[in-house]
Amino acid sequence: MNLSHIEHLGIAVKSIEASLPYYENVLGLKCYNIEVVADQKVKTAFFKIGQTKIELLEPTSEDSAVAKFIEKRGEGIHHIAFAVDSVADALAEVESKGVQLIDKAPRAGAEGLNIAFLHPKSTCSVLTELCEEPKN
Amino acid sequence: MNLSHIEHLGIAVKSIEASLPYYENVLGLKCYNIEVVADQKVKTAFFKIGQTKIELLEPTSEDSAVAKFIEKRGEGIHHIAFAVDSVADALAEVESKGVQLIDKAPRAGAEGLNIAFLHPKSTCSVLTELCEEPKN
Repeated sequence: MNLSHIEHLGIAVKSIEASLPYYENVLGLKCYNIEVVADQKVKTAFFKIGQTKIELLEPTSEDSAVAKFIEKRGEGIHHIAFAVDSVADALAEVESKGVQLIDKAPRAGAEGLNIAFLHPKSTCSVLTELCEEPKN
Repeated sequence: MNLSHIEHLGIAVKSIEASLPYYENVLGLKCYNIEVVADQKVKTAFFKIGQTKIELLEPTSEDSAVAKFIEKRGEGIHHIAFAVDSVADALAEVESKGVQLIDKAPRAGAEGLNIAFLHPKSTCSVLTELCEEPKN
């Protein structure tokens, strides 16, 4: 598998509004997009730093996976997302190596990317996402 | 503050030896350095992906901060490290903005970097490190 870079880091927060002053005023990053991802029941806020985005994830519902993460572990880094050329090819490759998949096929994620998640049971306990820029 | 990129991500693992097959054989990354950082009571293993390193952290003692992290939260992403021009200047700036510091002054970290940690109480619950390449 050819991972070119870390596409983004997902960070679970209770409130994007309450977190923005730290990211913008202390770290000096600029939030360039806020987007609701309805099927994941989260509101997301994006910052760019070098090759990588930071994606804040605020649950929009108590039964959101991010709400459950915060309830269990508190706010903090939720997942790492690697950029690949083809999510479908990467899924086939890692599945052939015994990795348990959360998503059996690529699906639409935030910012128009094709994404899929791998199960942390197979990834040294780090929830891991693969991302691909859509080909147009 | 001018953060140029994410210098590394620290990931707590119980065993580097047990984690290497995932990082090398599944993700296709290459471990280029294994180093003991005695004063942090960890063994570290490094991989590079784009601008960013992944640093696996294995505790070498039960009273290591990483051992306590694993005991409390399990294996997983432990901290994020941003590259800055000057850790001393960055510490002064963030302290003036009310951020609680773990390290009041830069100290030596793995791979010859000057580093300092900020307290997660002030960083939206994400243990945060600032790193600077030493000037020679």
